[in-house]
Amino acid sequence: MMLESNPLVQKIVRLALLEDIGTGDATTELVVGPGQEARARVVAKAEGVLAGGPVARMVLREVDPHVSFEQLAPEGARVSPGNVVMKASGRARSLLLAERTLLNFVMRLSGVATAASRFAEATRGTATTVLDTRKTTPGHRVLEKYAARLGGVRNHRMGLDSGVLIKNNHIALAGGIKEAVQRAREAAPVLLRVEVEVRSMDQVRQALEAGADCLLLDHMTLEEVREAVAYCAGRAAVEVSGNMTEEATLVMAQQGVNFVSAGAITHGAPWLDFAMYIEPAG
Amino acid sequence: MMLESNPLVQKIVRLALLEDIGTGDATTELVVGPGQEARARVVAKAEGVLAGGPVARMVLREVDPHVSFEQLAPEGARVSPGNVVMKASGRARSLLLAERTLLNFVMRLSGVATAASRFAEATRGTATTVLDTRKTTPGHRVLEKYAARLGGVRNHRMGLDSGVLIKNNHIALAGGIKEAVQRAREAAPVLLRVEVEVRSMDQVRQALEAGADCLLLDHMTLEEVREAVAYCAGRAAVEVSGNMTEEATLVMAQQGVNFVSAGAITHGAPWLDFAMYIEPAG
Amino acid sequence: MMLESNPLVQKIVRLALLEDIGTGDATTELVVGPGQEARARVVAKAEGVLAGGPVARMVLREVDPHVSFEQLAPEGARVSPGNVVMKASGRARSLLLAERTLLNFVMRLSGVATAASRFAEATRGTATTVLDTRKTTPGHRVLEKYAARLGGVRNHRMGLDSGVLIKNNHIALAGGIKEAVQRAREAAPVLLRVEVEVRSMDQVRQALEAGADCLLLDHMTLEEVREAVAYCAGRAAVEVSGNMTEEATLVMAQQGVNFVSAGAITHGAPWLDFAMYIEPAG
Amino acid sequence: MMLESNPLVQKIVRLALLEDIGTGDATTELVVGPGQEARARVVAKAEGVLAGGPVARMVLREVDPHVSFEQLAPEGARVSPGNVVMKASGRARSLLLAERTLLNFVMRLSGVATAASRFAEATRGTATTVLDTRKTTPGHRVLEKYAARLGGVRNHRMGLDSGVLIKNNHIALAGGIKEAVQRAREAAPVLLRVEVEVRSMDQVRQALEAGADCLLLDHMTLEEVREAVAYCAGRAAVEVSGNMTEEATLVMAQQGVNFVSAGAITHGAPWLDFAMYIEPAG
Amino acid sequence: MMLESNPLVQKIVRLALLEDIGTGDATTELVVGPGQEARARVVAKAEGVLAGGPVARMVLREVDPHVSFEQLAPEGARVSPGNVVMKASGRARSLLLAERTLLNFVMRLSGVATAASRFAEATRGTATTVLDTRKTTPGHRVLEKYAARLGGVRNHRMGLDSGVLIKNNHIALAGGIKEAVQRAREAAPVLLRVEVEVRSMDQVRQALEAGADCLLLDHMTLEEVREAVAYCAGRAAVEVSGNMTEEATLVMAQQGVNFVSAGAITHGAPWLDFAMYIEPAG
Amino acid sequence: MMLESNPLVQKIVRLALLEDIGTGDATTELVVGPGQEARARVVAKAEGVLAGGPVARMVLREVDPHVSFEQLAPEGARVSPGNVVMKASGRARSLLLAERTLLNFVMRLSGVATAASRFAEATRGTATTVLDTRKTTPGHRVLEKYAARLGGVRNHRMGLDSGVLIKNNHIALAGGIKEAVQRAREAAPVLLRVEVEVRSMDQVRQALEAGADCLLLDHMTLEEVREAVAYCAGRAAVEVSGNMTEEATLVMAQQGVNFVSAGAITHGAPWLDFAMYIEPAG
Repeated sequence: MMLESNPLVQKIVRLALLEDIGTGDATTELVVGPGQEARARVVAKAEGVLAGGPVARMVLREVDPHVSFEQLAPEGARVSPGNVVMKASGRARSLLLAERTLLNFVMRLSGVATAASRFAEATRGTATTVLDTRKTTPGHRVLEKYAARLGGVRNHRMGLDSGVLIKNNHIALAGGIKEAVQRAREAAPVLLRVEVEVRSMDQVRQALEAGADCLLLDHMTLEEVREAVAYCAGRAAVEVSGNMTEEATLVMAQQGVNFVSAGAITHGAPWLDFAMYIEPAG
Repeated sequence: MMLESNPLVQKIVRLALLEDIGTGDATTELVVGPGQEARARVVAKAEGVLAGGPVARMVLREVDPHVSFEQLAPEGARVSPGNVVMKASGRARSLLLAERTLLNFVMRLSGVATAASRFAEATRGTATTVLDTRKTTPGHRVLEKYAARLGGVRNHRMGLDSGVLIKNNHIALAGGIKEAVQRAREAAPVLLRVEVEVRSMDQVRQALEAGADCLLLDHMTLEEVREAVAYCAGRAAVEVSGNMTEEATLVMAQQGVNFVSAGAITHGAPWLDFAMYIEPAG
Repeated sequence: MMLESNPLVQKIVRLALLEDIGTGDATTELVVGPGQEARARVVAKAEGVLAGGPVARMVLREVDPHVSFEQLAPEGARVSPGNVVMKASGRARSLLLAERTLLNFVMRLSGVATAASRFAEATRGTATTVLDTRKTTPGHRVLEKYAARLGGVRNHRMGLDSGVLIKNNHIALAGGIKEAVQRAREAAPVLLRVEVEVRSMDQVRQALEAGADCLLLDHMTLEEVREAVAYCAGRAAVEVSGNMTEEATLVMAQQGVNFVSAGAITHGAPWLDFAMYIEPAG
Repeated sequence: MMLESNPLVQKIVRLALLEDIGTGDATTELVVGPGQEARARVVAKAEGVLAGGPVARMVLREVDPHVSFEQLAPEGARVSPGNVVMKASGRARSLLLAERTLLNFVMRLSGVATAASRFAEATRGTATTVLDTRKTTPGHRVLEKYAARLGGVRNHRMGLDSGVLIKNNHIALAGGIKEAVQRAREAAPVLLRVEVEVRSMDQVRQALEAGADCLLLDHMTLEEVREAVAYCAGRAAVEVSGNMTEEATLVMAQQGVNFVSAGAITHGAPWLDFAMYIEPAG
Repeated sequence: MMLESNPLVQKIVRLALLEDIGTGDATTELVVGPGQEARARVVAKAEGVLAGGPVARMVLREVDPHVSFEQLAPEGARVSPGNVVMKASGRARSLLLAERTLLNFVMRLSGVATAASRFAEATRGTATTVLDTRKTTPGHRVLEKYAARLGGVRNHRMGLDSGVLIKNNHIALAGGIKEAVQRAREAAPVLLRVEVEVRSMDQVRQALEAGADCLLLDHMTLEEVREAVAYCAGRAAVEVSGNMTEEATLVMAQQGVNFVSAGAITHGAPWLDFAMYIEPAG
Repeated sequence: MMLESNPLVQKIVRLALLEDIGTGDATTELVVGPGQEARARVVAKAEGVLAGGPVARMVLREVDPHVSFEQLAPEGARVSPGNVVMKASGRARSLLLAERTLLNFVMRLSGVATAASRFAEATRGTATTVLDTRKTTPGHRVLEKYAARLGGVRNHRMGLDSGVLIKNNHIALAGGIKEAVQRAREAAPVLLRVEVEVRSMDQVRQALEAGADCLLLDHMTLEEVREAVAYCAGRAAVEVSGNMTEEATLVMAQQGVNFVSAGAITHGAPWLDFAMYIEPAG
C-alpha cells in the first residue's frame, strides 16, 4: 500500500506503459473483441522470492480500473515453478495490454528479492547486517530497495538526501576528512548520520576523531578490517563494501563488521521467470 | 544524437535524477564549495562493450548545462579495466550530483551491450540473426534495445505498436490462428509484418496458410524446429525463442532458423563495472 | 476501451482541459450552484459518421469521476441532425466545465471519420485500400487514426517507429536507394516492412531489386503508375499518394494499385457539428 | 517570442514529438549517418497566410538545440507556391526527425491564418470586428488563436477563465438572466466583462437591464438583429454568431453589429500545404 | 468541486506529496502495520475562517482512493480552537502519509481566508470592494484566490491572461498611456477590461480620455485620490493599491474609491493553526 | 547552483509560470513591441535577508534563455530599502512576463530567510540550535528550507524519507514507544537517526531506554524540560517544539536543550517587499 502511494513509483509505472503501448497495441485490437472477458494467472517458472504484486496491481489499474486483481502468494514468499502467485480478471484486451509490463516488473523485482535473500542468508546467525547500495536501476530506486528489504536486506541511503556519505571524491575536493565531517555534523539536516569512506587506518582514525557515525571501509585488507573494527570498538559503526559476493560477505561478517553493503543485490540480480496465462471467461 | 532527441529517454533520465536527488544532495552541498571546479574521468573496471555515453552526457547536461563532456571510447567499443572512456569538467558539485545516476546508466547499458555481443558472437558465420525481446527493464526500452544493437543483436518489436505478434494468449481468445492472421493482414497498419507464435507442426501449417510473415516456434523440439524450417522453405521467416542461452542459440542456428530471440540479453545481463574519479581542477 | 488505456490519449485530454479551464470557469462558478444536478444530451447537427464517444467519457471523468455517461449511438454510426448520440448526468458545474472540450473532440473526430468514410466509399468494390497519412493534428495522432479506421480507412504508419519509409529526403542523404533499402532490410526491427518513395520507373526498378516491400509512387503520371503496377506484378505492394481527392482515388484504384493514401482524410476534414444541451435534473 | 515562452505551447510541442518519435525513427537511424550535415528549406505549395514559424523553431530546438533556423517570410505574410519561407541547417538526422511534426504545425496554423484572413477581409471597411471562438483543436488553443490574430481576426475568450459568458445552458440552470448577470457583475474577477447569450428581444432587454456588457445574439433573424442593435444603442456591444460564413459575416456587418464570431475560422480551416526539402550540406 | 476539477490544483497537490514522500515514509512503514485501520480528526487550534477542505480531500484521495473523508464545518465557516472540522478514516498508513501535506494546505488557505475576512470587514457598509492581487504563493494562485473569496474579498486578475493591466513598466516601454490603452481596446480579447496604473492627475486624465475601464491609483496622496474619484465620476472605476493595511483600506473606502487591492491578504497572512489526531479504529 | 539542479525546484518554477501566464500575457503582447530591449532592476523595499536569486534566474531562463541576469547582493545578505539586488536585461516582453513570478519567489524566500535570521539571532551565544520544521508551503519545501539555512537556521527533516520521527500519532497506532523505536533502529535506512516525540518524563525514559537518538519534547513545562535535559545527560539530543516564538526560543535555550524547532520560521513569515523596475534599453 505504501508503494501504490509513492509518486515516484507511479511515475515509473506510467512511463513503462507509455513506452510499451505507444500509439496502441497493434495485435490485440485486431484479434480480440472489445467485449471479450478473460481470466489471467501469473505463474512462477523458477525458484525464488516473490516481489512486485502491488506494482502488478498498479499496472493493471492504470490500464483499466475495472480489472479485478488478487495476489495469492504474499510479498516475500518463496515460490517454486508452477505456483500461481496472482490472478486477475476483466476485459481480455486490458489483460493483454498490461501483460508484458506487469511481468517485467514482477520478474525484475522478484529477481532482486531473490538475490537479496541469498546475501541475507550468508550472514544468518552473525551480528552483521547486509545492506543494499544506490547502484539501482535508474527510475527503479524505490522498487528495488523495497525488493531488497523483502529479501531480508536492510536499506542503505535511499538517495542523496537521506544520509551524509562523504566519499573519496568528496574528500579529494573538500581538502580533508576532518573539515568535511565537522561541517556535516554541524549543518546537515539533524536526523541524518554522517558516514565516511576510508581507505587506510590513518583515515579511520581521522574520521573517528572528527565524529563520524559510520565508517565505510573501501579496498582494505582483511587484516586492516579487523584492525579497524577493533580500533572503533563500537564508537562508530563499521561497513565494508566493494564487489561483495555472498562468500565475501560471510568472511567480512566473521571480522565483526556491522554492515556489509553489496551492489550485486541489485546490479547483479538476474530476473526471476514468471509467465501469464490468459483464457476466455464467461 | 538520436538518443538525446528521444522523449522517452529524456523522461527516464529526469526520473532517475529526481529519485536520486530528491530534496538535495545532503553531502555535497556541505563539504564542497560552490565555486570549486573539478575534472572527472569515467573508467572501465571490467572487460566488455561500452554503451551509454550519450545518456551520460544527458545526465550531466540535465544537472548543469555548463559542464563539458567528452566521450573517449566510441559507443560499442570493447573496453578493458583501466580504460578511460569519458571525461567531464565543470563545477565539482554538478559532477558529484550526477555521478551515481550517470554510472548506473552506463553500467546497465554496457552490461546489456556486453551480453548482446556474446549472443551475437555465438551465431557468427551462420545465417541466423539474434534478436532481443520486450523483456526489458520498464522505462528503459529504448535504451536497452539501443545497447543490444550496439552489441550486435537486431531488434525485435520495440513495443506493442511496432509489429503484430499473435501469441498463445491471443490465439486462445481469438478462436483460432486463421481468423487472427487474416484479420491482421487486412487491417493492421500497413507497414507491420504479422508473426504468429506456434507450438506444433499443425499450428505451423495453419499460420503459414493464413499468410503469416513470420513464425515464432515456442517449446518445440529440435526435431520439430528442423521440420518447421523445411516446411516453411522461406515462405515465412522462422524464429525460435524460450530460455535461449548462447549455446542453445548456436544449436538453433545450425537448424537453419532465421532468428533466435533471447530475453537473457536484457533480463540476464549483469552490469558492467565502471567508476568515476573526480579531482579538483584549476 | 483501448483508447482510454492509451497514455498519449490521456495526455491530450488533460492538456485540453488545462488550456480551457486555466485558473477556473469564471462563469459557471458564479451562476450555477454547487449542489445543482443536471442532465446533458449531445446532439448531432449534421450528417456524418460519429467518432469520439470514448474521449467524451474521458473528458467527463477527468473533470468529475462521479458523472455518469452513456453513448447512445455506437462509434462509427452514421448520424443525422437531431440524433441524440450521448447523454450524461451529474453535477451541473461538471457538465458545463467539460462541455466545450468534449464537443471539440467529438466534432473533430467525427469530422475525420466522415471524411474517411467518403474516401473509403470511393474505392468500394475495387481491390484498392485507402490509407491515411502522418499529416495529423499534432498531439492527436492516435485519435485521428482511430477516427480514420472508424470511417473505413486503413492506417499507414502510426509514427516514425512503426514502419520504414525511405522518402526522397532520405534518398538524397543516403546516397542511393539500393544501399538504403538493404540496410533497412538487414537491420530494422524485424516486424517492420520497408517502403520506398519513388518518382520514376528507374527508381521503381531499383527499389524492387533492392527488396522493398512496398513502393510509394509520388508525382508519377497515370501512365507511369500503370507501368509500375505491371512491373511490380505483386512482388511489392504499390501505393500512390499526393493531393489525393476522392475522385483521384477512384482513378488510381482503377489502375490496380494496392493503396492510395490521402492526407486530406485528416488535414482536409472540417468538423462535424454537434451541440450539448444541459437542463436541470431532480 | 511570446509563443516560445508559453508553457501550454511547450506542452503541445513536446506531446507532438513524443507521439511521432515514440521509440525512435526506424528509417533515419538506419539510412542516414550520424555525422551527416544537411540544409532544409520549407516551401509553400499553396496561396495563403503564413503562421507557425516560432513553433517550427521550437520543434527543431526540442529535437536538437544545435540546429540553426531562420524564418525568411514574416509571420502573417501572404505566401505563394514556391516561396521559401524558412530554412534550417544542422544534423541531417535532426532535420528528418522534426520534419513531419514541424510541417503539421505550420500547415495547420497557416490554414487557420488563411481562413481568418478571408473572414477579416469580408468586413473590411465596416465597423464590425470578426472574432474567433473556443471551437479550437484541443491542446492548440493558444496557437490557433494566435494564427487567427495573424489573419486579422480578434480573439474572443481564450478560455473559461478570461471572460464571463452566460450561455443558454447557464441560463437554464441559473434560473434567469437577471440573477446570473447581477451575480457576475458583483463577483467575477474585476477585469472580466460579462456577456450574455440571448435568443429573443425579451432576453435582449433583460440582459441589458441587468447590466450585461455584451450580448451574443444566437439564432435570431436579420430583422431581430437589427432591432437588437437599435435597442442597445451602444449601451452594450452586440455580437452575432452561429454557422457564420464569410458571406453571412458581411450581411451581419451591414446590420451594424459590433462583432461577428465564426467557429469556421478554426474548425473549418483546411491546412495550407507546405513541403520540406532536405539536402546534404558540406 | 470546481477546485478538484482544476488541473493546476491537481498539479500542486501532486507536487506537494512528491516532495514530502520522496522515496517513502521512513517512520510509518516501520512502526505501523499495513492492515491497521484508523480514524483521523482535523481540529482547529485558533480562531479564524476555514478553507481548504476540498484540497484536504484531494490529498487523501491521491494517497489512497479508499480513505473516506468528511468535512464537518463548511468552507468559509468561522472556527474556534477545539472545533473538529474534518474527519477521515481508512488505512492508518495512508492517514499518516497525508497528514502533514493536508495540514499545510488547510493551514495556509485558512490563514488567507482569515486575513481576507479582516480586510472585507474593514469596508463593510461602504461601497468599496476589497480585491486581492497577483502577489500569491507561486503554484498556489487558484487556491489562494479561492481562499480570498471565501474570506469575503473579490478577485482581481487571476493571471496575465484574464485582464489587461497597463502598469508603470508597460507605460515606460510603450511610449505613453494613450497608445497603450487604444491598442488594448482595439485588440485585446474582447471580454477583458483595460486598467491603467496612474501616478498623477495628469495620467488620470490621459487614461480616462484614452478609454480605460479602470484606473489603478498608485502612490497618490489622499487628496489626489479624492480628486481622481471626483474627476472620474463613474466614467471609469477607481482602484487604489500599495501596502494597504486594514486601516488604510477603510480610509480609502471613505474617499469613495470602487476598489482597494491588498497584497497582504495573501503575502502577509500567517497560517491558521490546525492539528490532526489519529487513533486506531476497529 | 544546487538549487537550479533540483528537479523539485524546476517543477515549482514551471508550475508558477504556467498558472500566471496561462494562455498568454494579454497586456504585454499588445503594448510592447517584440523587438524592444529593456533593463530591469530588482530593488529591496524593506529591511531583511535576501534569498531567491537563483530562483529568479531560473524564472527568467525558463521564460527566455537569452535574458542576461546578474545578482548584485549575495544570497543571505542583509538588504535595506533601495538596495539594487539583481539586474537583468534582454527582451522587454520577457522581463514583463517573468516579473510577478520572479518577485513572488524572491519576496517569499527573503521573508523566510528574514524570519529565520531573527530566530537564529535569539539563540546566538547559546549552545542551542534553531531548527525549521515540515510546516512549509506545499511545493516549496526545498526552497523554504534553503531560505531558512540562509537565515542561520539548521534544517530538521526535509521530508518523510530523511529521518525517523515517531510522533504521537505513530505511538498511538504502534502500541508503545519501545517497540516502535526498536523496530526503527533495526530496520530503518542506516543513515537515519531515530527521534521520538514525548510528552512526559515517563515517555522520556522509555524513549531513551529504547535507544532513541533524539527526543522531541512536546507540550512539556519548563520544569519538565529541565528535568528531561538533565535526565538525558547527552545520551540523546533534546529538541523542544510547539508554537515557538523568538522569545520562547531563548527561554528554551537557557534550559540547555540542543534544539528548538519553530514552524513560524516558515508558516509565520510575511514576505519581504521587493520591486522590479524596467526601462527601455538601447
